[in-house]
Amino acid sequence: MAADPSPKPLSADVPVLRWEEPPEGPVLVLLDQTRLPAQEVELVCTDVHTLVDAIRSLTVRGAPLLGLAGAYGVALAAARGFDVGEAAELLAHARPTAVNLARGVRRASKAHTAALRAGKSLEAAAAAALAVARELHREDAEASRSMARSGLELLERLVPGGGYRILTHCNTGVLVSGGEGTAFAVALAAHRAGQLRRLWVDETRPLLQGARLTGYEAARHEMPYTVLADNAAGSLFAAGMVDAVLIGADRIAADGSTANKVGSYPLAVLAKHHEVPFVVVAPMTTVDLDTPEGASIEVERRAAHEVTEFPPSGGGGFPLAPLGAQAYNPAFDVTPPELITAIVTENGVLSPIEAEGLASLCDRSRSGNETMKI
Amino acid sequence: MAADPSPKPLSADVPVLRWEEPPEGPVLVLLDQTRLPAQEVELVCTDVHTLVDAIRSLTVRGAPLLGLAGAYGVALAAARGFDVGEAAELLAHARPTAVNLARGVRRASKAHTAALRAGKSLEAAAAAALAVARELHREDAEASRSMARSGLELLERLVPGGGYRILTHCNTGVLVSGGEGTAFAVALAAHRAGQLRRLWVDETRPLLQGARLTGYEAARHEMPYTVLADNAAGSLFAAGMVDAVLIGADRIAADGSTANKVGSYPLAVLAKHHEVPFVVVAPMTTVDLDTPEGASIEVERRAAHEVTEFPPSGGGGFPLAPLGAQAYNPAFDVTPPELITAIVTENGVLSPIEAEGLASLCDRSRSGNETMKI
Repeated sequence: MAADPSPKPLSADVPVLRWEEPPEGPVLVLLDQTRLPAQEVELVCTDVHTLVDAIRSLTVRGAPLLGLAGAYGVALAAARGFDVGEAAELLAHARPTAVNLARGVRRASKAHTAALRAGKSLEAAAAAALAVARELHREDAEASRSMARSGLELLERLVPGGGYRILTHCNTGVLVSGGEGTAFAVALAAHRAGQLRRLWVDETRPLLQGARLTGYEAARHEMPYTVLADNAAGSLFAAGMVDAVLIGADRIAADGSTANKVGSYPLAVLAKHHEVPFVVVAPMTTVDLDTPEGASIEVERRAAHEVTEFPPSGGGGFPLAPLGAQAYNPAFDVTPPELITAIVTENGVLSPIEAEGLASLCDRSRSGNETMKI
Repeated sequence: MAADPSPKPLSADVPVLRWEEPPEGPVLVLLDQTRLPAQEVELVCTDVHTLVDAIRSLTVRGAPLLGLAGAYGVALAAARGFDVGEAAELLAHARPTAVNLARGVRRASKAHTAALRAGKSLEAAAAAALAVARELHREDAEASRSMARSGLELLERLVPGGGYRILTHCNTGVLVSGGEGTAFAVALAAHRAGQLRRLWVDETRPLLQGARLTGYEAARHEMPYTVLADNAAGSLFAAGMVDAVLIGADRIAADGSTANKVGSYPLAVLAKHHEVPFVVVAPMTTVDLDTPEGASIEVERRAAHEVTEFPPSGGGGFPLAPLGAQAYNPAFDVTPPELITAIVTENGVLSPIEAEGLASLCDRSRSGNETMKI
């Protein structure tokens, strides 16, 4: 199972998530992100319970990709003849913070229900759900391209002179998206334009998505990158070695408050203290106008063993703390709008962060990739 | 070798560092702090090279304890007939940031040289160096008691009402000191006074001295403690769950700039943003008036594998990042005086942090445990 962990070229076609139709029936195949970068292993989901477990264990993760997983999960349930309503319920609640998951589930479910209501066969209804998942997949890839373009233009304005030293947190590339990702896609665009001087990669404790996954993607794209303990970001700011912070988002409330991987908020406070731009890059599927403000966002709390053991296997890991130690382990934190310089979406760039502007981005057609004044 | 990792009562007499005189000649015995909390293993140093390796590998660590290790190391070289000048040179430069190490070395060396110059025997000169190490040990224990008392009084003034929720970083207890430590000793005093509601323990990546060592000490004192990924501290501040931050120091410059374990500076910025007191607790041996300001402090950069492998064994660990990934790994960061609410020493409490006040604390006699106006 162990693969050569040395960098290989990575195309946008890497099968992070793919739908296959062997004779035994359709399956959803996931690249197991918990094993990277040491091993490239795939997990085959033949039912929704396996997929829900994969979502909870972060085998598949990242807000946009969770949206796709949710939609494909509904399609899988429909194609395999499971109870689609029950599957949708299980999937939508597998993790609470990323709004994309419930959205993807809902969109595929609606197509399935509509087909049945229109008198179509179970098979046709399943095909309708799958068509929606595939549409979402294409849209997400297109949103990535658009965010990368807008994000790079924004960087050119915020950091005149190029040669960007970008700090990023968690993982926001191919591994979280139908395309090349969110924040990472902007850094990649800068790299392709010859303007990325350094990608500072926060390791992102406790599950190390930065060191493991962003490191993996950066290596494969031959980007100049350096991993650091999250603790060391302060030293980089103090030394004037960060030109901009780029992060993704799991949910953006109506006031622009942004829930993202825990550790994002401290970076926003540091960025403010050092007058460094702090930029959120996220597709419109992450914006949730039904959540009025940051305090309304449900932040997932995860198990202590993620912090107190390595690997976080829930019992068999090496102890990092005394046996039975209690741990505080929120998966996300919330950054208030006043600490965010700009939000980059496929519908344009919002800056400053105001509820009206965010609502109007939501109204905007996908083609109107305008930029607000910054 | 493996010991029961469950909590046991811990007295101030735990042999973190002890001098023994078996028939084969004197030895310095160290509790191997890299193995805690899973194993309690001792390392016996019969020569200075072993001790220097132990200092570099963090088998023995913590600014005040490094001062003791340096002094005992000189005594060991003298007693064993090694070149004391060479030993002093090696020991003083084993790690660059904590000024206590070079100070302890210098104090024992001076006593040794003075004895020889006074015409005393090699044996008597070695005894003089050992006497100084033991004196430093006693002084350090006394300084701990004094800092604990002053720190608790300060907490009572800064956080009226008691029931403190204290956030701490790295390890600053019995394991770093001839006594009960620095910042941890204050939290312990609060616990004994029935006023510690929660000790929030930053795990302190990359080497996890918080989770491993502060966890170990807190468990043994039956303190209410919770471990967190350093990333999660921001969420605690945002939720109003931190009443004060207490940290130690590795070097305090003449202007009050404080070098401490990497991750301290981001906490200071967060504390300022949330108007939470940020308190440094350190003995006067940590103050270095010869270092004018923070920028003059040499910050140790350590090996990449501490960040990119677990355990950080320098080759055989589990990879946390792609093979060959570059890492930025400063061991310390520097917090400027304007972000520090108070510095607690055995000579009194300094607040606000000003060069004149710090210089006058240095002049003050050890008995004059006065408190500056805060």
